[in-house]
Amino acid sequence: MSETGNNLSGQPLRLDVALVHYPVCNRNGEVIGSAVTNLDLHDIARAGRTFGVDSYYIITPFADQQQLVREIVDHWVTGYGAGRNPARREALNLISLCPDLAGLYATVTDKWGVRPTVLATSAQVNERTVDYASVRARIKDGEPILLLFGTGWGLTREALAEVDGLLPPLKGGGEYNHLSVRSAAAIVLDRLLGRS
Amino acid sequence: MSETGNNLSGQPLRLDVALVHYPVCNRNGEVIGSAVTNLDLHDIARAGRTFGVDSYYIITPFADQQQLVREIVDHWVTGYGAGRNPARREALNLISLCPDLAGLYATVTDKWGVRPTVLATSAQVNERTVDYASVRARIKDGEPILLLFGTGWGLTREALAEVDGLLPPLKGGGEYNHLSVRSAAAIVLDRLLGRS
Repeated sequence: MSETGNNLSGQPLRLDVALVHYPVCNRNGEVIGSAVTNLDLHDIARAGRTFGVDSYYIITPFADQQQLVREIVDHWVTGYGAGRNPARREALNLISLCPDLAGLYATVTDKWGVRPTVLATSAQVNERTVDYASVRARIKDGEPILLLFGTGWGLTREALAEVDGLLPPLKGGGEYNHLSVRSAAAIVLDRLLGRS
Repeated sequence: MSETGNNLSGQPLRLDVALVHYPVCNRNGEVIGSAVTNLDLHDIARAGRTFGVDSYYIITPFADQQQLVREIVDHWVTGYGAGRNPARREALNLISLCPDLAGLYATVTDKWGVRPTVLATSAQVNERTVDYASVRARIKDGEPILLLFGTGWGLTREALAEVDGLLPPLKGGGEYNHLSVRSAAAIVLDRLLGRS
């Protein structure tokens, strides 16, 4: 991890990111499992490495999808791509697999010795919404935080009901709000950890 | 354009984005033309639409690459995808083609009646660097601005020498700085136009 991702006391950030492929919604609000895509792995790993994320978890219960993740990561971390592009190796080295959210929560709780605060982005603003500035300060103070990003049309209502807080929707001047999950993750990490 | 992308006076933003495929550098610093990729079109168009960008220009001199761009855009703007995903139609509708930077500068100068301020992101900080807050204010004041993003290993030195200013590199806590151009564009637009 070298010099990236230390808080003010020089300790590594206790921040993890997870990209959830199940359970998420499709365009009709039905619960589905989405397919893993190569660029979701690369782009969010590169942003995670840039901003000092500890681990980037890919959540999918499907064996063939897990195998695809392993093959992509192996290519860049230990295979041909590792020598060809060391910067990409450093990024994809953040990736771990988890079959489901229960497994994810157990893994990160075990890692930090305490259950982290779990936050998800949401199109809604309600009493569970936490603002970016306060989360930024909590990360800097060393609080373990886990950020969930949903693929497809987003995390199911049941998954959102389990998290500890919601990050406000990412907006420009208007109501249009259809960023890719890759763009949303990059912006959220910049808001929480970026420097000019 | 509807409600998105107005400044404080209710005027549309005079902000354009261009993704440059030539002239850019490869990993060895040689000048190349890079290939257009589908997700570069989608992700940056979606971010552009979210943050109120007027046009998203794809710069490539290669006829086959231009044709690929036309086919992708047509599918989503007038073809099957337009009915299936109207939000994507709105985003890809921002896309225009230009063969080269000279053509781009002529096009945007003609559109705004004045040559816009051309800014590019750069890994260097020097006397041409402008900070995000001041550019944000200038956009809000109605100044026409054109943001250039380079694919591959970035814009050539000659292309960078022609721009009016450089935006600071996007960093987290450390020196690792290998974001995808999709992530970089999303973060830059959020820093210039995003709201919590």
